This record gives sequence, C-alpha cells and structure tokens, in this order.
Amino acid sequence: MITDIASDSAGSEIETAAHQHGYISDKDRYLARMRRIEGQARGIAKMIDDEKYCIDILTQVSALTRALQGVATGLLDDHLKHCVLDAAKLGDEDAAIAKIQEASDAINRLVRS
Amino acid sequence: MITDIASDSAGSEIETAAHQHGYISDKDRYLARMRRIEGQARGIAKMIDDEKYCIDILTQVSALTRALQGVATGLLDDHLKHCVLDAAKLGDEDAAIAKIQEASDAINRLVRS
Amino acid sequence: MITDIASDSAGSEIETAAHQHGYISDKDRYLARMRRIEGQARGIAKMIDDEKYCIDILTQVSALTRALQGVATGLLDDHLKHCVLDAAKLGDEDAAIAKIQEASDAINRLVRS
Amino acid sequence: MITDIASDSAGSEIETAAHQHGYISDKDRYLARMRRIEGQARGIAKMIDDEKYCIDILTQVSALTRALQGVATGLLDDHLKHCVLDAAKLGDEDAAIAKIQEASDAINRLVRS
Repeated sequence: MITDIASDSAGSEIETAAHQHGYISDKDRYLARMRRIEGQARGIAKMIDDEKYCIDILTQVSALTRALQGVATGLLDDHLKHCVLDAAKLGDEDAAIAKIQEASDAINRLVRS
Repeated sequence: MITDIASDSAGSEIETAAHQHGYISDKDRYLARMRRIEGQARGIAKMIDDEKYCIDILTQVSALTRALQGVATGLLDDHLKHCVLDAAKLGDEDAAIAKIQEASDAINRLVRS
Repeated sequence: MITDIASDSAGSEIETAAHQHGYISDKDRYLARMRRIEGQARGIAKMIDDEKYCIDILTQVSALTRALQGVATGLLDDHLKHCVLDAAKLGDEDAAIAKIQEASDAINRLVRS
Repeated sequence: MITDIASDSAGSEIETAAHQHGYISDKDRYLARMRRIEGQARGIAKMIDDEKYCIDILTQVSALTRALQGVATGLLDDHLKHCVLDAAKLGDEDAAIAKIQEASDAINRLVRS
C-alpha cells in the first residue's frame, strides 16, 4: 500500500483515494537515472577542480541538462497517463482538471527553464 | 602555474601558451555551485524513493535545470571574456575565431538542450 | 458543426466522434496572438534590413520565442483539458492514452526546441 | 558606408567607429530566413483558423521555434566574430568586454526563453 504523500510534504497534491503515482511502477528506473545524473554532476565538479577546458565542461553540462529533461518529460507522461486518467475514470472531472492544471503549470516551467 | 589540459583530456582545446581558463579565478564559487547541484540531484532521487507527488518532483527538476543553466552561461561568459579575448589580444585572429566557433557550438547545444 | 480535420490534413489525429478541439472556444484569441507573432517576425526582418544592432535584434528574437512558447503551452493545456478529458469521459481509455502519448511527444519536442 | 544605428534606435549599442555589424555580409540570407519564419507564423494562424488538430499545430510551432533559434545563434556567432573581435583588434579592451557582456546577457535570455 502506498501512502500518497508524507506528512512533511509541501502538500501541493490534490488527493484521490488509494491512488498510486504514475512513476511508481518505474521507480527503480527513475532512481537509476537520478543516480547517473548525480554522478554526472560530480564529474562536472571534478572537471572544474581539475581545471579542464571550459568548452569541454559545457558539453557535459548540456548532456546533464538533456538527461534531466528526459526524467522530467518521463515523469510528466506518467503523471498524465496515471494521475490525470485515474481522476477522469473516477468521473471526478474537477479533480482531473485540477491535475491537468498542475501538469500545465509544470510544462510551463519546463519549457521556460 | 596552470597546466592547461591534462594529458588524458578529450583535447578539444586550441592551445594558447600560458593561458589560464576564464573560470579559474572563480573556481571555488563554481565548485560550490556544482556541489549544490549534486545535492539537488540527490534530493530529487530521495523524493522519488519516498514516492512524493510527481508535480512536486518536477518543480525540483526545473529548479535544478535552471541552476545548471546558470553554471553554463557563467562558464560561457568567462570563456568569452578570457579565452577569446586573450587570443584576440595576442593578435592571433585565427585562434580567437576558433575559440569563438567553439563557443558558438556550445551555445547551440545549450539553446537546443 | 465542426469538421475535425480537413481531408488534406497530415491526419495524425485519433478521431473521437463529434469532438471539438480544445482551442476552438478561444480561436479568436489564438488568431490574434499569431497575428501579433507574425508582426513581430516582420519587425525583426525590418530591423535586419535597417541594419540595426545585432543585440537589439536578439532581444526581439527572444521576445518572439517567448510569445510562441505561450501559444504552445496554451494549446497543450487546451488539448489536455478537452481532447484528452473528452476521450476519458467517453470511457475510451485507449483513445485517451493515445492522445496523452501525442501530447507527451509534443511536450518532448517543445522542451528540447 | 554603413550608418551603424539609426537615430530612432533604442541605442543599446556601444559605438566603435566605422564598424559594420557582423550579420550585414549575410543580410540577404537572414532576410530570407525571416521571411520564411513570417510565412511559418502565417501558416500556423491558418491552421488555427481551419481548426486543424492541436498536436499538428504544436509540431509547426516547434519547427518555427527551432528556425528562430537558428537565426538567434547565427546572429550571436556573427556578433562575436565581428563586433567583439573588431573591438579587441582595435585594442579597446573595455569596448570588447562591454560587447561580450551584451552577448552574455543575450545568451542568458535565449537559454532561458
């Protein structure tokens, strides 16, 4: 059983009963991607410490940015296919609209970041 | 004395004698920023492990992306103000043009990533 | 009565009967935004023709890019709130998933462009 | 003879005598690209007016965004190779630094837009 959001959460979620976040089924894959991203960040810090050429560092920063965007679009896709669709299937249109609004706000932040 | 690029480097640099990369004077600040970015990546992994709400995770991914872009535009600025200008001041126009071309390629990768 | 897609269309749409695209209710507003964007593009061409300063032109290009992103995220929001939700309300989960997949692909293209 | 900036200009330029903006030699090519971009904007307005499928419209918006980014990175490259380098060759380091700062600010706006 999944408890949706821990009590210390920022709590932006609109609750739907017994709902499981979309990405949970792929949790291990997402964790592996984030560990790799963390390693990439550490590698860039090492390049700076070793005083590598700026342009070579920038190439790694671009690669890291793309890896992050891959995680973001994956999470969004899972959110739409699970959180939004589950709300819609429960016939709760207000909840579905609210979740879509959250997704749209997140897309805005991603597209502009 | 700075050795420009270690012998195991990918070696995309066009050498100019006794030149110091632009970001070196700010090295500690860049290292601190990368450590913070690494911490943000670790925080996102923990959010996934704790099964936090997807949208809250996406907000952190956007913040991390913006932090990375800040490092990238900072490195570019330093590259232009030091590596490019140093080459130009040495009167070596070919080297300056080559370094600008590298910068332009890096900008392309950043704008599209 | 809305005919969904003209016969000469690229036809990527997955049909749902008598469905109206989300943006149609705001059609006039979207048309006005696109006319303004067209005017911005014409203004940039004029700046180039008048040999204005490159950086001033770049400022206008960034403004135009942001205006376009605003149209794109607006269309996406409307797509999710209408096309996706309408399919979900009809109980057609496959159609809803297919429409979300199209949206996710579009988000990918936007985030990376 | 090129007059650098018309008197009605916003005037953000730091003047260097008898200098020609980098993109001028490619002016016709840039004008052709902007005319094509204007046509793409008009095509998207027509798709909206014809009530085409939202996702097909989004594909065209992404293509237009990429075309604009191509113009922007081209202008930046020309700015660096001409305006910045010309200032550096004149031995005017302050002017060169000022022009690089303008370029960095423009890169920031592009990367974040």
